[in-house]
Amino acid sequence: MAPDLPAGLESSGTRLYVALVHYPVLNRNSERIASAVTTLDINDIARLAKTYGLKKFFVVTPLTDQQRLAERVIRHWTDGFGAAYNRDRRTAMELAAVLPTVEDAVEAVTLKEGERPVLIATDASRREPKGLSYDAARGLLQEARATLLLFGTAWGLDGEVLEAADYVLDPVYGEGDYNHLSVRAAAAVILDRLVGR
Amino acid sequence: MAPDLPAGLESSGTRLYVALVHYPVLNRNSERIASAVTTLDINDIARLAKTYGLKKFFVVTPLTDQQRLAERVIRHWTDGFGAAYNRDRRTAMELAAVLPTVEDAVEAVTLKEGERPVLIATDASRREPKGLSYDAARGLLQEARATLLLFGTAWGLDGEVLEAADYVLDPVYGEGDYNHLSVRAAAAVILDRLVGR
Repeated sequence: MAPDLPAGLESSGTRLYVALVHYPVLNRNSERIASAVTTLDINDIARLAKTYGLKKFFVVTPLTDQQRLAERVIRHWTDGFGAAYNRDRRTAMELAAVLPTVEDAVEAVTLKEGERPVLIATDASRREPKGLSYDAARGLLQEARATLLLFGTAWGLDGEVLEAADYVLDPVYGEGDYNHLSVRAAAAVILDRLVGR
Repeated sequence: MAPDLPAGLESSGTRLYVALVHYPVLNRNSERIASAVTTLDINDIARLAKTYGLKKFFVVTPLTDQQRLAERVIRHWTDGFGAAYNRDRRTAMELAAVLPTVEDAVEAVTLKEGERPVLIATDASRREPKGLSYDAARGLLQEARATLLLFGTAWGLDGEVLEAADYVLDPVYGEGDYNHLSVRAAAAVILDRLVGR
């Protein structure tokens, strides 16, 4: 399926990438916006990416000041003071990269993996007919398909991203119908369900 | 086992409480410290507590200025501007309460549940002989024992808390041996493993 994989990739199990999307996302009035970067999100999701053996973590924002902020955070831990202060954070942050659009993330994965990735969006509502259960998503990953998982900031991914995706992962429910986790916490639960244990 | 449960508690399934502990915890040199409150931790763990049907979420700190900070955050979302702005956050934050010590949290649960809770500490290392698997912990919760789960901030719970605990839950591992999640992300994964689905 991917005859020209770069050296090293053959040895790995799942070929999972994640993107934290800041545009296009929704505000509380369901209007399309570009959200601000939350530096703690970058730290938390980079550490999740390292924990769960992901290939890369893309911070997606088209705003140049927000790109600069994200890059400064990443550089602090990979090259700056933080790199010497905390080696564990460094190995996590080395997985992070900033890109302007979701399509750029798709292209980066395609270039690296030699195939266009399966695109899985996440959403707080079940979206038929593209809805994907956690079991089905685990199955896809175990087939070793290159996969890009998209997380939305603010009030979630814009409909245009859901339309472009191949699948929309089922929402995270715990005990009842409350469904309002932070993107950091949702990413933790989702990655553990997809590639944990 | 608990003949005098307050009204309403009989109807629920698991009787799980969590505490986010800011003292006694360790710094990077394994010295005992009191850590500062991170307001985002309170927001994230309150929403997790609501998602997973927990009974209460205790923010444990003996420092009065940190207690005041935590109380201000909670009040903002339960009584202040945030309560009207975001009802979902309000119902989550209503689960949060500030207490000075872990023992106070144990006593609060005892008072509410009519029995002293099983005390489960979390730690980044496996701690024999008190080590508890996720399956065994799910079993305990399904027996409907009142349970208090302790999360440590900074570099984790001090040894004195691990000694006082009945069990120490196995660490969170993903794919390899990297084991450095934020307490927010670790709490998300652990609660999903214990009471999710």
